[in-house]
Formats: sequence, C-alpha cells, structure tokens
Amino acid sequence: MEKRILGLDPGLAILGFGAINCTQAATKGQNTAVNMLDFGVIRTSADAEMGQRLCTIFDDLHTLIQELQPDLVAIEKLFFYRMSSTILVAQARGVVMLTLAQHNLPYIEFTPAQIKQALTGYGNADKSEVQDAVARELNLAEIPQPDDAADALAVALTAWFQV
Amino acid sequence: MEKRILGLDPGLAILGFGAINCTQAATKGQNTAVNMLDFGVIRTSADAEMGQRLCTIFDDLHTLIQELQPDLVAIEKLFFYRMSSTILVAQARGVVMLTLAQHNLPYIEFTPAQIKQALTGYGNADKSEVQDAVARELNLAEIPQPDDAADALAVALTAWFQV
Repeated sequence: MEKRILGLDPGLAILGFGAINCTQAATKGQNTAVNMLDFGVIRTSADAEMGQRLCTIFDDLHTLIQELQPDLVAIEKLFFYRMSSTILVAQARGVVMLTLAQHNLPYIEFTPAQIKQALTGYGNADKSEVQDAVARELNLAEIPQPDDAADALAVALTAWFQV
Repeated sequence: MEKRILGLDPGLAILGFGAINCTQAATKGQNTAVNMLDFGVIRTSADAEMGQRLCTIFDDLHTLIQELQPDLVAIEKLFFYRMSSTILVAQARGVVMLTLAQHNLPYIEFTPAQIKQALTGYGNADKSEVQDAVARELNLAEIPQPDDAADALAVALTAWFQV
C-alpha cells in the first residue's frame, strides 16, 4: 500500500513543501520504504499587498495539491515568535488550512521538538542534524534547499514514522 | 455619487458585518447622507474542525460580497489579546483578506481607538457610547444586535467619516 504525505512549513514570505511516497508492508512490523517525490517553496513578495500574497499561497497550494495528490498532510505547528510575525504567519496558516479543508485533506500537526525527536532521537537537535537525517532517510546526495523545503520534508518524515 | 461600505469585525467564532450606503454630495463640504443597508454575523461552530470553520467564513463572505456589492471594505485592526486567541483570530483574518483580494476589493483598517474617536469624539469611549452613536448616525430605533454587528457598522461609519 502506498501513501503520499505532503509536509508543509507554513510562512507568509516562504512556504516550504516536501512530498514523500511511503510504501507500507502488508504485515505490521515489516520493512517499509520511503522516497522523495518533490520539494520546493511557494514564495510571496514583501512588496505585494497582504491580500495578494495570500492569493498566491491559496492558488499555488491548490495547484500543488492537484499535482501531488497527497493522502495526508503534515504541518509544522505554529511556533511563538514575536507577536507581529506570529500574526503574519497565522494569517498565511489560515489560508493553508482553508485550502486543505477544501480538498478534504486530513492533516497532522507536529511541534518543532516532535520533529527533531522523530528524526534525530532527541528534541534539542540543531537544524543541521535534522537536515542530515532528512537527506539520509531519503537517500539524497545533498541536503534539500532552501531550508524551508528541508523542514517540510522533515515534518513529512515525522508523519511517516508515526502513521 | 453613492458608495457602499462594508464594515467587518473579524473573528473565528463570530464575524460581524455591517453595510452602509453613503450618498456623497458633488461639491466637497456639502451634506452627505448615510443609511444602513444590512448587518449581521457569520458564525462558525466551536465543535467544527478549524479548516471547516475557515471554509464557512470563506464561503459566507463570498456570498455576502456578491449580495452587497460593496465599493470599499473597512476592517477593525487586530487587537492583541492572549497569544492563543490572537492566532485563531489571525487565521480567520487571513481568510477574510484572501476573500477581499479575490474580489479586488480595497480595504481600510482602523484600530479600536480610531473607531471610538471617529464615532464619539474621544478614543477611550466605552462600548455602549459607540453603539449609541451607531444607532444615532444611522437613525436606528434600536442598537443593532449582536455586538459584533454593531461593531462592524461602527467601523463602516469610521470609513465613511474619512473618505
């Protein structure tokens, strides 16, 4: 059985995405295989109006979902930065959650600590350790760029470990 | 010249709206007239999933804009409450701003203090004074209910005073 998981690292300026394909063994406890399908980012310009930036996220994410046809979405939970940036990210995140609901896509959320724990075995791992684990798990010769795409693959892998 | 202004008080559980029609005199400084077109709220259930609640806001707001055909939208600026509720409101607000952009609708934002100042003459007015002013300006026998609808009419009137 195959399962496609789309990982998302939502932001307003850059929204990272990473899709993986998981082949599950029929018997529980058997080996399962995972491979990378696609990764990248949706960018919105800081010069554009807020509404236009949200339209870009909405339109591009719709296109991405239609292309990738995921079975499940994994999202990095909103982390509390400064209040002003949290509001901007939350506005973008609202549009992401709307889009997922319009496609009837189930999603799981993971905190940064849960993602670090899942990929490296401890919740305080630094960014490069998580990125190394992403490349290793997916047999990639290089760490996916930019960071937001690697982060999105990390959250997709976290979902794979758990489902 | 007529101008329709749609006031919005965005929230996740209750989004207040209030539409007014302004007749502008041809000569600046002449009297202008304003009257109430419609007011009410879009409600989403706390029992529903976040994505479904955002879909309700998106769909109902689209319908409302198609029905009311506003020329301008006035929105109450996001006020900083507790972080967790701010994130919920910001997510709903992101969907509102997306919807306005999809309709190419210009919008103006006002802080609570600006709205109080515009309607009562001072920025520290309490809620009932603002509501009384809304009823008086629009020649309404009663204060519009619920509060979120009255707040939305207040922000629409604030835009009318300024444009």
